[in-house]
Amino acid sequence: MNTPWQRFRQRLHTIIFEADTWAGRAFDVTLLFLIVLSVLAVILESVPSIARFHSQFFDRIEWVFTILFSIEYVARIISIRQPIRYVTSFFGLVDLLAILPSYLGLFMFGAHELAAVRILRMLRIFRILKLGEYTSAAALLAYSLRESRAKITVFFVAIFTLVITLGAMMYVVEGRSNGFESIPLSIYWAVITITTVGYGDIVPSTPMGKFIATIIMLLGYVIIAVPTGIVAVSLTTASKKLDISTQACPNCSRQGHDPDAVYCKYCGSAL
Amino acid sequence: MNTPWQRFRQRLHTIIFEADTWAGRAFDVTLLFLIVLSVLAVILESVPSIARFHSQFFDRIEWVFTILFSIEYVARIISIRQPIRYVTSFFGLVDLLAILPSYLGLFMFGAHELAAVRILRMLRIFRILKLGEYTSAAALLAYSLRESRAKITVFFVAIFTLVITLGAMMYVVEGRSNGFESIPLSIYWAVITITTVGYGDIVPSTPMGKFIATIIMLLGYVIIAVPTGIVAVSLTTASKKLDISTQACPNCSRQGHDPDAVYCKYCGSAL
Amino acid sequence: MNTPWQRFRQRLHTIIFEADTWAGRAFDVTLLFLIVLSVLAVILESVPSIARFHSQFFDRIEWVFTILFSIEYVARIISIRQPIRYVTSFFGLVDLLAILPSYLGLFMFGAHELAAVRILRMLRIFRILKLGEYTSAAALLAYSLRESRAKITVFFVAIFTLVITLGAMMYVVEGRSNGFESIPLSIYWAVITITTVGYGDIVPSTPMGKFIATIIMLLGYVIIAVPTGIVAVSLTTASKKLDISTQACPNCSRQGHDPDAVYCKYCGSAL
Amino acid sequence: MNTPWQRFRQRLHTIIFEADTWAGRAFDVTLLFLIVLSVLAVILESVPSIARFHSQFFDRIEWVFTILFSIEYVARIISIRQPIRYVTSFFGLVDLLAILPSYLGLFMFGAHELAAVRILRMLRIFRILKLGEYTSAAALLAYSLRESRAKITVFFVAIFTLVITLGAMMYVVEGRSNGFESIPLSIYWAVITITTVGYGDIVPSTPMGKFIATIIMLLGYVIIAVPTGIVAVSLTTASKKLDISTQACPNCSRQGHDPDAVYCKYCGSAL
Repeated sequence: MNTPWQRFRQRLHTIIFEADTWAGRAFDVTLLFLIVLSVLAVILESVPSIARFHSQFFDRIEWVFTILFSIEYVARIISIRQPIRYVTSFFGLVDLLAILPSYLGLFMFGAHELAAVRILRMLRIFRILKLGEYTSAAALLAYSLRESRAKITVFFVAIFTLVITLGAMMYVVEGRSNGFESIPLSIYWAVITITTVGYGDIVPSTPMGKFIATIIMLLGYVIIAVPTGIVAVSLTTASKKLDISTQACPNCSRQGHDPDAVYCKYCGSAL
Repeated sequence: MNTPWQRFRQRLHTIIFEADTWAGRAFDVTLLFLIVLSVLAVILESVPSIARFHSQFFDRIEWVFTILFSIEYVARIISIRQPIRYVTSFFGLVDLLAILPSYLGLFMFGAHELAAVRILRMLRIFRILKLGEYTSAAALLAYSLRESRAKITVFFVAIFTLVITLGAMMYVVEGRSNGFESIPLSIYWAVITITTVGYGDIVPSTPMGKFIATIIMLLGYVIIAVPTGIVAVSLTTASKKLDISTQACPNCSRQGHDPDAVYCKYCGSAL
Repeated sequence: MNTPWQRFRQRLHTIIFEADTWAGRAFDVTLLFLIVLSVLAVILESVPSIARFHSQFFDRIEWVFTILFSIEYVARIISIRQPIRYVTSFFGLVDLLAILPSYLGLFMFGAHELAAVRILRMLRIFRILKLGEYTSAAALLAYSLRESRAKITVFFVAIFTLVITLGAMMYVVEGRSNGFESIPLSIYWAVITITTVGYGDIVPSTPMGKFIATIIMLLGYVIIAVPTGIVAVSLTTASKKLDISTQACPNCSRQGHDPDAVYCKYCGSAL
Repeated sequence: MNTPWQRFRQRLHTIIFEADTWAGRAFDVTLLFLIVLSVLAVILESVPSIARFHSQFFDRIEWVFTILFSIEYVARIISIRQPIRYVTSFFGLVDLLAILPSYLGLFMFGAHELAAVRILRMLRIFRILKLGEYTSAAALLAYSLRESRAKITVFFVAIFTLVITLGAMMYVVEGRSNGFESIPLSIYWAVITITTVGYGDIVPSTPMGKFIATIIMLLGYVIIAVPTGIVAVSLTTASKKLDISTQACPNCSRQGHDPDAVYCKYCGSAL
């Protein structure tokens, strides 16, 4: 526990995985900065008019990011107690995907699509969200969405049924000559319509098709209200749960009492 | 009650209509799997590039599904006490529609539209939703929508009036030469606009028409809030109704205790 | 008070303006039916393919509706105590507009636009909404919207400012050559974008314009949440107010007590 | 404190910055009127068909507004105690931007874009919102949005990540030949899709691209529910905070009384 190597590993761990110390905070902010810059570089590199003149510049800067992220990746493996668990975790894979494309590009030619994989670095930002007040906000949102999982599943089963049935109906009514070439394409149209996106690339032409489309849109009105209501309700419940008096019972020291509680609801002693 | 035939019917009933036993659960999961597969087959069969090369394969697989669902249909009729009530029920008709098109296809030629009817099999999925925690979620959603029926009806009467009036107005303002060829078409446009779908197939051309369209869109902003508000409120009410224990304290007889409460939070006596 | 004419007027009043008696209820349902039919006739008459072959039929049926509504209009004037107040009221004007176009059409030629005015008959449906449980639902919705008037006004002032500022910005950035021909047209585009309608008739072409459009759309995400939140909150409050115990104080007989109130909050006597 | 100049400054201050006196109220209403008129003039001047014939009229009216707003600007500087703080404040800069373009136009030719800057006058309207009941409504909305700042930030970080990742995915799947020319353009498309705007200027062509687009749209369904839920919850909380009297009963010292309560609803003693 006292070898210099172990002390180094421990310090590394504090810097990389915790945000309490000055060094840890600085590390997080630097990393956030590097991630945003590297994602920006990937995005700009894809623009033809920019890439044409600065391709060498982007190649170089990409290697700078790759090397920096590689050092970080190795540092994470070194400092953690169970490296294998980290490597196979979600963020471990994302970290690997953030550096792999550059190394693979050395061996493979034309691996252009691989470059876009680097954009997954963006996901690493979520790791930084542990900073400050955003944790509790993120936790609240995540909790609400998890809480309403069953309701949202039921909602999506209903939506899928509706969209598939309506898509097949429009396929029969409008037919192949009006752009509704297959049931999958009609379902694609039904989703575009019911989510109120409305690209306008496929559009009903027959009066009957337009009538059905009108019904679908009006249905979509009430349907869009359902997930909103679900999330609003679970957010309210979640907010209240976190708001609930943090008063602990002096006898059994359990928490979660209502603000107007006079006696502990678990053991009955006065609060 | 003890003839082998009756015992067979009873066992069949337990498997098909209940989800408590191992066999019933397995039956539901298999059925869910078959329904999804058969719907997928109908969808893929409609894609020209797929159907061209595999039409024989789809014909065969369709007969497999038809025969399996026919056996299931007969089993349901046999096992139930009042077969006529089942056959004429909503799900009875859906079950029949799931197998009928294939048999009718033997006698009729060119019954292509009939094939799409098979997609109604999708509706059978709702029968499986009785599984697990989804029942209560579905019940909650259904209850909320039923509860807000009167409000949603009033809302839709208001929407219909608005959309018909605005459609007629645009028909007069824009006129036939600008694509607003008839009042039904103008109403179709008004629905596209007020639901924020916005295909862009019909679009106002005159300054006056654009001005009215702007007003409609901004109106739609507040209007879309109404069903959301309605559903959110009724979901909140429904959630609370199902949540709060109706247990009264035996000492002070006050209610409103949490489901996990052991002692009255007002007077401290055991519940 | 006892002349036959007065008794006739009184009975007429009961039938037309009240829905308690059998006759009044029948009158309302018949009227609803006639309004819907006459609106349908106006809508269908505007469809070229229908009007071409049945123009005479529509002319005749229109006169039937006009005469029936004229009789109703006269009956309303006769039966009411203050005819002038009725004639100048909102529904009085709507009733007049429902019959006027047909009579004016006798004297004026080419009064085609006038025909569309008849669609305002649709508004008369709101008078029938006094039937059944819909009254309280309509009252609740109307109350909620009225209650949130100040908030919605502030919201719209903010939206107008945003939309005008962003419209002018896009007019400068995109310019006349890209379809943003004038500031009003740019504002029209900004409204289409921020309300998520998205026709696609005007679309940014420059990278800078697309960037600003992206910002506007993401802004619209949070903005659309505001009216929904406002309406949801006022609906909740309104629902609670109507839910509140209708218990009257035995001493001062005032209502509006909370469900958990033990003493009257106005006079202090026990409830 | 009693020199005529100081008294003049004081009266000016009362008129310009306060809305309690008759003169102050009249000043606010006049200013509101002038702002709306001047913004309307800027908007109309940009319409080619109007500007062609009335350019001289707009030039003159613009100078009238410039001179009036200049007088107001000077009056504000004179009447306030710390003129520098006002000049460098947000509204001070907006006030300057409202008059500067006209003066700059005297020296620079072709400063057409500058004209659009004048539309920022619109922002001055927010200063007038201090009138009447709108203050509290605006305060409530502003408070709610501020309160949910952390949640909305987390939400936007998630949206950015999603939109960038999905944009890059579509860039790879659809490719440059189908209109997804660069990652920024694909992100622009993803924002158009997930916010349900749906212009239709860029649209997936490949089956795979359409499949991903369908997933994105359905995702957008739940995503749009999140900000609505956030704002609804914070509006509810904010409304309650401003509503419930914090008055405690002098006898039993319980709180939660309605604002119109005269007696404690729990023990019946006078509040």
